[in-house]
Amino acid sequence: MPELRRDPITHRWVIIATERALRPQDAFEHAVAPVSKTSPFAEGNEGMTPPEIYAWRPGGGAANGPGWRIRVVPNKFPALRIEGALDEAPDGLYDRMNGIGAHEVIIESPEPDFTLQSLPHPHLTRVLQVYRDRMADLQKDPRFRFSLLFRNHGAAAGASVAHGHSQLIALPVVPPTVRELLDGARRYYKFHGRDVFEDVIRQERADGRRLVLETDDYVLIAPYASRQPFELAIVPRFRGTRFEAATDAQLEALAPVLRAALDRLARGLGDPAYNFVIQSAPYGQRDVPWFRWHIQISPKLTQVAGFEWGTGFHINPTPPEDAAAFLRSLPG
Amino acid sequence: MPELRRDPITHRWVIIATERALRPQDAFEHAVAPVSKTSPFAEGNEGMTPPEIYAWRPGGGAANGPGWRIRVVPNKFPALRIEGALDEAPDGLYDRMNGIGAHEVIIESPEPDFTLQSLPHPHLTRVLQVYRDRMADLQKDPRFRFSLLFRNHGAAAGASVAHGHSQLIALPVVPPTVRELLDGARRYYKFHGRDVFEDVIRQERADGRRLVLETDDYVLIAPYASRQPFELAIVPRFRGTRFEAATDAQLEALAPVLRAALDRLARGLGDPAYNFVIQSAPYGQRDVPWFRWHIQISPKLTQVAGFEWGTGFHINPTPPEDAAAFLRSLPG
Repeated sequence: MPELRRDPITHRWVIIATERALRPQDAFEHAVAPVSKTSPFAEGNEGMTPPEIYAWRPGGGAANGPGWRIRVVPNKFPALRIEGALDEAPDGLYDRMNGIGAHEVIIESPEPDFTLQSLPHPHLTRVLQVYRDRMADLQKDPRFRFSLLFRNHGAAAGASVAHGHSQLIALPVVPPTVRELLDGARRYYKFHGRDVFEDVIRQERADGRRLVLETDDYVLIAPYASRQPFELAIVPRFRGTRFEAATDAQLEALAPVLRAALDRLARGLGDPAYNFVIQSAPYGQRDVPWFRWHIQISPKLTQVAGFEWGTGFHINPTPPEDAAAFLRSLPG
Repeated sequence: MPELRRDPITHRWVIIATERALRPQDAFEHAVAPVSKTSPFAEGNEGMTPPEIYAWRPGGGAANGPGWRIRVVPNKFPALRIEGALDEAPDGLYDRMNGIGAHEVIIESPEPDFTLQSLPHPHLTRVLQVYRDRMADLQKDPRFRFSLLFRNHGAAAGASVAHGHSQLIALPVVPPTVRELLDGARRYYKFHGRDVFEDVIRQERADGRRLVLETDDYVLIAPYASRQPFELAIVPRFRGTRFEAATDAQLEALAPVLRAALDRLARGLGDPAYNFVIQSAPYGQRDVPWFRWHIQISPKLTQVAGFEWGTGFHINPTPPEDAAAFLRSLPG
């Protein structure tokens, strides 16, 4: 059973995923192993994954067989286990609980070498709806307080299977990054009486230097305090505290913005490894005027080194103004 | 002039090192460039660095010439600039200041392929004294509130020059990681009335599973909530709030512990890339009974991926008990 352990000083939780590594040597080799040659996520290889949780089969067909266009399965090597109780307990002076949580894999296409930005509009819209629906479904489990939808593209971004996929992890605790976002946004609202997301959108639209593109519903910006080169954020121009409450129309409008972001990064920077995460409020968070879900996209062009590790400060060698200007300059 | 920019929501500062990159493409290529073939840090190449700040020349000799055993120079591509005023100012709704700070490089040996653990005892002790003395010297500048001594070994750990070296960055603000450590340690002290470092040492010595070695003055442990596989911490068994106040005797006793940690990682895991940082209280922090400086060593065996980025949670596939047992099992 994996464990959640809390640092006695910082109170940050760590997932100790005991079942992923049998011996220290294996852990090391597993972690840096090259991506697999035979895709366990390809059509026809459905037996290589645990039984599916959901699949989109426009032409029909049996579960766990071919014919799907999007497929959701439990992670075969989950960081957290779905069965059991948390059993919070002390461990001497430390705090621990069982590593209870969900860990799902969303395979957005059966083609082994697909990219998200190459999916046709209806398909990509459906992908976003599946993200939303899986987040909404896991919310029903009262043990879970938060879920994160994230995508690691490329080995440098932590992908261990080459066939493109996203992951969804539901957690029994609200993680610190999310808490900081919510607390910070509320602090701004209480101080200024305005939504910080609205103020950021207003300033970025007026200024223009960090704006990559805008639509009626979203802005795509290089954030003012970008932590990494070519970091991007997609921010809705409408209110929405939790991603799982997004409407079909909002997700249909999101698809071309996400496509443009990933497509420009891929063309401009030579298909870099990247992570994206959907930052959304914790489960059960009531709708508030000071926070809205948004998407952070972070190409992996530099290594996080000792300085970042020791301080929490990032050093970004590329001003976001330069990153945005470069991405804007690419042909549409 | 580099800039310090603050995220409007999380209030975390980012260093936008504008002068490190002329164009977006350069930033990208620079960041992933292979390490240099001709060491700018080797003996005889002193002209390839800015003029030295300090050098240890046991046999004498002129500054910026050969004959040194340890040499400290300004970083040729500094993340921060030493000259100027902070000029804190708003930028619309954002907060910024000039990127004022010190960025020094400590070249611990003139041999291009040296490792820290291979230096003789008097040399390694002297290295630790130089770390301390440079931190103490920068404290005299009233603009600086904190400094971090860190070492990136190997390209995967962010080293851009193959010749081994450490770096020292002094900052005009106290970074969040340090603030969290201090606040967390004080919270523990106020709640329990005891020093958390003392309690951790007591438990780890009694338990033994995460203890790699102990001396009269230090313990080397795999922390209970290790964020990465084979993470290690060196914790003093004596009180000391700031590393720059460490005595020569304390540093002489530290050298064999640091050597053992790096040597066992190198032998056990095949010379992995690693970062280490010296966590010390901010400049001007009075001596307190709840915090002590310590060293965090983190081999880079896994990629930080979207989940860590989005939550601040780390997933560690190797239980620290397994890591410590493996490192203990190596011949001494």
